Amino acid sequence: MGLLHPDRLFPAYPVSRDLARALYGAVQGLPIISPHGHTDPAWYATDAAFPDPAQLFVTPDHYVFRMLASQGVPLTALGVPRADGGPTETDGRKIWRLFAAHYHLFRGTPSRLWLDHAFETIFGFDQRLSSANADDYYDRIAEALQTSAFRPRALFKRFNIEVIATTDSALDDLAHHQTIRASGWKGRVVPTYRPDSVVDPDFPGFAANVAQLGALTGEDTQSWTGYLNAHRSRRAFFKSMGATATDHGHATARTEDLPPADAAALFARILTGHATADEADAFRGQMLTETARMSLDDGLVLQLHPGSRRNHSATVMAQFGRDKGFDIPGRTDYVTALRPLLNAVGMEPSLTIILFTLDETAYARELAPLAGAYPALKLGPPWWFHDSPEGMRRFREMTTETAGFYNTVGFNDDTRAFLSIPARHDMARRVDCAWLADLVTTGRLDREEAFELAPDLAYGLAKAAYRL
Amino acid sequence: MGLLHPDRLFPAYPVSRDLARALYGAVQGLPIISPHGHTDPAWYATDAAFPDPAQLFVTPDHYVFRMLASQGVPLTALGVPRADGGPTETDGRKIWRLFAAHYHLFRGTPSRLWLDHAFETIFGFDQRLSSANADDYYDRIAEALQTSAFRPRALFKRFNIEVIATTDSALDDLAHHQTIRASGWKGRVVPTYRPDSVVDPDFPGFAANVAQLGALTGEDTQSWTGYLNAHRSRRAFFKSMGATATDHGHATARTEDLPPADAAALFARILTGHATADEADAFRGQMLTETARMSLDDGLVLQLHPGSRRNHSATVMAQFGRDKGFDIPGRTDYVTALRPLLNAVGMEPSLTIILFTLDETAYARELAPLAGAYPALKLGPPWWFHDSPEGMRRFREMTTETAGFYNTVGFNDDTRAFLSIPARHDMARRVDCAWLADLVTTGRLDREEAFELAPDLAYGLAKAAYRL
Amino acid sequence: MGLLHPDRLFPAYPVSRDLARALYGAVQGLPIISPHGHTDPAWYATDAAFPDPAQLFVTPDHYVFRMLASQGVPLTALGVPRADGGPTETDGRKIWRLFAAHYHLFRGTPSRLWLDHAFETIFGFDQRLSSANADDYYDRIAEALQTSAFRPRALFKRFNIEVIATTDSALDDLAHHQTIRASGWKGRVVPTYRPDSVVDPDFPGFAANVAQLGALTGEDTQSWTGYLNAHRSRRAFFKSMGATATDHGHATARTEDLPPADAAALFARILTGHATADEADAFRGQMLTETARMSLDDGLVLQLHPGSRRNHSATVMAQFGRDKGFDIPGRTDYVTALRPLLNAVGMEPSLTIILFTLDETAYARELAPLAGAYPALKLGPPWWFHDSPEGMRRFREMTTETAGFYNTVGFNDDTRAFLSIPARHDMARRVDCAWLADLVTTGRLDREEAFELAPDLAYGLAKAAYRL
Repeated sequence: MGLLHPDRLFPAYPVSRDLARALYGAVQGLPIISPHGHTDPAWYATDAAFPDPAQLFVTPDHYVFRMLASQGVPLTALGVPRADGGPTETDGRKIWRLFAAHYHLFRGTPSRLWLDHAFETIFGFDQRLSSANADDYYDRIAEALQTSAFRPRALFKRFNIEVIATTDSALDDLAHHQTIRASGWKGRVVPTYRPDSVVDPDFPGFAANVAQLGALTGEDTQSWTGYLNAHRSRRAFFKSMGATATDHGHATARTEDLPPADAAALFARILTGHATADEADAFRGQMLTETARMSLDDGLVLQLHPGSRRNHSATVMAQFGRDKGFDIPGRTDYVTALRPLLNAVGMEPSLTIILFTLDETAYARELAPLAGAYPALKLGPPWWFHDSPEGMRRFREMTTETAGFYNTVGFNDDTRAFLSIPARHDMARRVDCAWLADLVTTGRLDREEAFELAPDLAYGLAKAAYRL
Repeated sequence: MGLLHPDRLFPAYPVSRDLARALYGAVQGLPIISPHGHTDPAWYATDAAFPDPAQLFVTPDHYVFRMLASQGVPLTALGVPRADGGPTETDGRKIWRLFAAHYHLFRGTPSRLWLDHAFETIFGFDQRLSSANADDYYDRIAEALQTSAFRPRALFKRFNIEVIATTDSALDDLAHHQTIRASGWKGRVVPTYRPDSVVDPDFPGFAANVAQLGALTGEDTQSWTGYLNAHRSRRAFFKSMGATATDHGHATARTEDLPPADAAALFARILTGHATADEADAFRGQMLTETARMSLDDGLVLQLHPGSRRNHSATVMAQFGRDKGFDIPGRTDYVTALRPLLNAVGMEPSLTIILFTLDETAYARELAPLAGAYPALKLGPPWWFHDSPEGMRRFREMTTETAGFYNTVGFNDDTRAFLSIPARHDMARRVDCAWLADLVTTGRLDREEAFELAPDLAYGLAKAAYRL
Repeated sequence: MGLLHPDRLFPAYPVSRDLARALYGAVQGLPIISPHGHTDPAWYATDAAFPDPAQLFVTPDHYVFRMLASQGVPLTALGVPRADGGPTETDGRKIWRLFAAHYHLFRGTPSRLWLDHAFETIFGFDQRLSSANADDYYDRIAEALQTSAFRPRALFKRFNIEVIATTDSALDDLAHHQTIRASGWKGRVVPTYRPDSVVDPDFPGFAANVAQLGALTGEDTQSWTGYLNAHRSRRAFFKSMGATATDHGHATARTEDLPPADAAALFARILTGHATADEADAFRGQMLTETARMSLDDGLVLQLHPGSRRNHSATVMAQFGRDKGFDIPGRTDYVTALRPLLNAVGMEPSLTIILFTLDETAYARELAPLAGAYPALKLGPPWWFHDSPEGMRRFREMTTETAGFYNTVGFNDDTRAFLSIPARHDMARRVDCAWLADLVTTGRLDREEAFELAPDLAYGLAKAAYRL
C-alpha cells in the first residue's frame, strides 16, 4: 500500500483536490532551491558514506529525539552525546529499536511525514515502521548507506537540488566549501554568513571570538571601526565563496541606530566584559542595523530569526549542551523593535531583509503589515515549530491578504537532516498548491493565476529573493 | 467571463455552497448601512464629478499605494502629495499604467476583490486589469466619470445606501453636512464626533485645538469643567446634525477613572504642555471614561479603535505626512486597560460601547469574554488589516462561541474609497453567509435560524447598534 | 425533527463525514472519565432530587446567565443570589420564561449545544426552547426531576460515568465523599486537592485558612516546615479518599525555586500580612514548585489552570460575589514563568504536570514545544471559553504537530452543570473524530491509526494521565 498517500495534504473535496493535484503536477519536478539550512558542508566535500541508520535519522535530529524524551526516553538511550563525555548508547540497532517502538508518537506530526517520505522514496519501504519491522528497516537502510547511490553527492543529484546554502560561523575558514569548489563537482553549495559568535556578547567565548575575527582579517577588532571593517572583510570572503546571505539568530528583534560615537562607546563597553544585559542587548540591536547597512553595500540578503529562548532546560544544557530540543519560542515584538533599523534603511528597495518568526501572532498583526509597506522587508516561510502543514496554512491565511504573495520568499527547509530535504519541499509545495486551489475554488483567484503562482512559490520567489 | 466568480467566498462543497448562496440571495439586495467610514462629506454636498481614474482608485488609497511601495515603487510615482510640496506625479495616465503593471501584486488580497468588483459592477469591465488593457481601462473610466450617472449622489442611490456616517473632527463646522441637509437631497449622511485632536495631548496643535474648542462653544476650555462642557456642547451640535456615534483612535485601550479633583489636576498639568508621556496617556484614558459618561447622557454610541502604531516610518511621515500606509498594528490589551471604564459604566444596559481591534489574539481571549458579559460592550467587525475574507472568518470563529451573534454589530466598511463600499458590504455578506451555512451543515444551527441571522448580520444589527 | 443533528460537528463532505461517523461510532459508547470538574459531592452523597428547572439550568450556570446579562438582563431577574442577601427572583417559572425568551442569544455557542443535548436526550424535547413552549418545558422538566430516574445517582449511571473528580478545598473535611464511600453505592467519585485558599496570600481569609490548616493536621503552620508538612498531610488524606490529582488556579503561571532558607523567609514575610504584591506572587510561584516536589513523592497529578483575571467587574463582585461570569482571560506567559519549576523537576518522567490555558496564542508557540520536550509536562484540553467546537479544533491544529497526541490527556468537562456532562464529552468526541477523519482524508494518518487514536482521545489518555 505504501507509506505515503498520493493526494496527501490536498483538500478532500474532489473539485478542489483535482485542482491542487494539477497545480502540484506543475511544480513537483522543479529543482530544489534551499537558501537556508544547516546541512554539513563536509558531507559534500568528502562525499563519505553516512553512518548507521540511527546516526542518520535519530541521534542528530532534535525534532525526533525530543519527542521521545517528552515521553520519558532518556536522551542517552538515543545516543545523544553527553557534554561531560560520559556514557551514551552507541549501539545503532538498539537506538533504532527504541525509535521504532515509539514511532506512534509522531502521528499527526510533520516529522512523521518527513520520515515516511524518506523511508518510502529513498529506501523503498512500504510498511510503517514499528517494533515488528525495526530490524528489517535497520538492515536495509544500513546496507543501502554503504552503496555509492546513497553518498551525499549522489543524493544531492537525486534530490534535484539546484543550490543549497549552509550556515557557517563568521570565523569559519570555509575549508569544506573550498574543497567542494576545487573538486570539480557540479553541485552548488554556498555558505551563509552567521556572525552570532562575534556579535552576541553573551555567546560563549565572545572576547576570544572577536580577537580571532581580528586575526583572520588583519583588522583591529578592539576598535569600532576595525571591528566593522573585519565584518566587511569576512562578508567579502563569504561572498567570494558564493554566499548571498547572512543570518542572525537573536533572542528578540530589537534593533538600535545609535549615533556613531555612541555605538563606538557601546562597543568599547561591551569589550570590557562588564556590560549589563541591556547593553548587550542594545549592542546586538545596533549590529543588526550595521549589518543592514553593510548589506546595502555588498548586496547580501539579511535574514533575521528571532524569538527562540535557547537552552530552556538547565539540566539538559548541562548534560548535553546546545540544540537538544529544548529551545522554546516566546512572544516576539517586531513593530517597536524593528523601528530603528527600518528608519535607517527600511525604504531602500535594493535591500532585502527576510523576517522569520516563532510567534505566529505576529503574522497578521505585525509582519504582514510591515512587509506590505516597507520595500526592504520580505517574509520568510513558517519556521521550525511552524514548518508543518497546519503552520504553513496559517502562514498563508494570515499574511496573504495584507502582504500578498510577492512579499514572501518561497520555502526554506532549514534542516540538518539531509534526507528530509525532498520531503520538506514536497510538503511545502503540496500545502501551497492546496491553498491556491482553495483560493480558486472559492472565487478569489483565477485558475491561470494559480498556475503562475505555484512555480513562483515552489521555486522562483526563493531564487529571486536570495539572489541565487 | 467576467472578473467576479458568482459564488466567490462561498464554501466549495455543493451542499454548503447551495445554502450559502440561498442565504446570500436573501440579503444581497438589502440596503447598505454604513455606520463608520471616512468618505468626504464634500462629495455629497457638491455632487461634483470625481477626478481622473488615478485620483479615484490609486493616489488616495493607502491600501493600494502601500502595496506598490512595498515592492519598490516610489510614492511620488503614484502621485502621493509631498509634505514639502515638492514634485509628485500628476499625470493620471502614467500613474494608472504603473498601477496596472503591478496589479498582480494584489492577488489573494481583499483589495483585488474590491477593485475588481468596482471595475465590473460599476464600469462594466470583464478582463482583468493589466498593462495590456491599462489605457482602455483609463479611457473608459475617465469617460464615465464625466457623466451624471457617476456623480456621488447618483452612485449613492445606485449603491442602495440607506445611511452613511462620515468621521469628523470635533472642531469641524459640518458645513458640508449643513449643505447636504439644506439641499433637499434625500440621501442620509450623518457625521461622527471624533475628538482626537482635542483629547490627545500628543496631537499636533493640541493646545490651539483646545483653545478653538473653547471659542466654538463659548466655554472656558482652560478649566476642566468648561472643557468637559465644551465637549458636551459639540456633541449636542453633532447630534443635531444627525450624529449617533463618537469615535476614538487611541494607541492603546487604556482607560482611567480618576476622582474629579485628580482629573482636573491632570487636565491642568496637560495644559502646561509639560506633561510626561504617561500623563498624556492617562489623560487619554480618563477622557474615554468621561466620554462614556457623556454617552450615558446623550445616547451617542462610543466607538473605540485602539492599537495602531501610527506613522511607523519616520521617513514616510517626513516626506508625505500621515495616513500613508505606514500605520502598523501592535499588541493591544483590553482586559486590564478597560477595567476603570467598565467599573464606572460597564453594567449600564443603555450604553453602547463598540470595541474594535487590530490584535486578533484578543478576539477569543479578551473581547468575546468581555462583550459576552458586560451589557455596555459590543464587538465591532474585523477592522482594517482584518477586513478581509480570512479575517472575517477568524472573527466569527473566535468570537461567536463566547459572545454569540447578538453582541456583534454587523459590518463597517470604514473606507475613504467610495467606490469600494458595495464591494466591501458584499464581501462581508458573503463571508457571513458562508459561515452560517457551515454552522448549519455541521449541525450547529438550524436552517431557519440562519435565514433569520443573515439579514441581522447584513443589516439589522448595524442599524440597531448604531441607533440609525 | 429533534434538536440535535445526528451528524453535528462532523465535516460536511461525505467521505470525511462517513469516516468521522465511523470513528465516533467506535467511541460513542465508551464510559465517561471526568478527571476534572466542579460538581457538588453532596449530590452523590444525598441523592436528593434536583430543585426546579431554573435552579438546574439557569441560576447556577455562569455560562448561561452571563450571556443574558450581556444583553441587559439583570442577574437578580435570573435568581442569582445577592451578596448582601437582598431580594432576587425566586420564582423558577419566571426565571425560566426569561431564559426561554432569550434562548436565541445562544445560537452558535457551545451552551446551546449542551442545553439542547440535555433537553433532547435527558428530557425528550424535540422543539427548540422559546417563549412559546417555555411553560411546557418547565412543567415537563419539573415533573421529571421529582422522579427517581432523575436523581443524581440514577443519572450518574445513565450517563455511563466510570469516575468523576470533584474539586475540593484543602480545608474540606470531604464529608460528602466519606458518605459516598460509606453508602455502598458503586459510583466512583473522587476528590481533588485544591489548596488556593491556603496558598494564595490574596485569598480572602488567608491567615485564618493557614491557621485552620494547622489545626486540621496538628502541624505548626506558622513555620515553613510545618506548613509544608501540613500540605503533605492533607494530600495524604485526600489520596486516601481516592484523589489522584491536585489543582491550582493562579492568575499567572509564575513559578519560583528559591533556596529553602529564602523560601522560609518569604513564607514568614507572607504570614506578617504585609507582603508586597510581588512577594505574594513569588510565594504562589514557590508553592507550585513545592507542590510539584510533593507530587514526585506521592504521585498526585498536578494541574495548573492559570490566566483568569478573576472578578473583573467590581460592581458584580460587590453585588453578587465570585464566579458570576465576570472572570476574563488575559495574556499568559509559560516559557519564562515555568522555567524555575521545570529546572527543578521538569525532566522527571514519573511526574505529571497538566497545563491548561485561557490564552490560545500559547498553544503553538509555548505549550506544545514545552510539552513536546519535558517528560513531566502534558497538555490539558481546551479550557472554559475554549471548550467549544472551534476551540477544540484550534487546540488540535495548533498542538498536534509539535506535541503529538500522546502529550495530551483527553477531555475534561470542568463543569458544575451535571446535566451537561454527557453533552460535553459527546462534543469532544465528535470534534476529535472529525479532526482524525480530516487527517486521514488528507493523507496525514492511516485509517487504522485513527481507529486506535479515537478511543485514546475519548477515554484512554484521560484515564492514564490522571492515574484513574
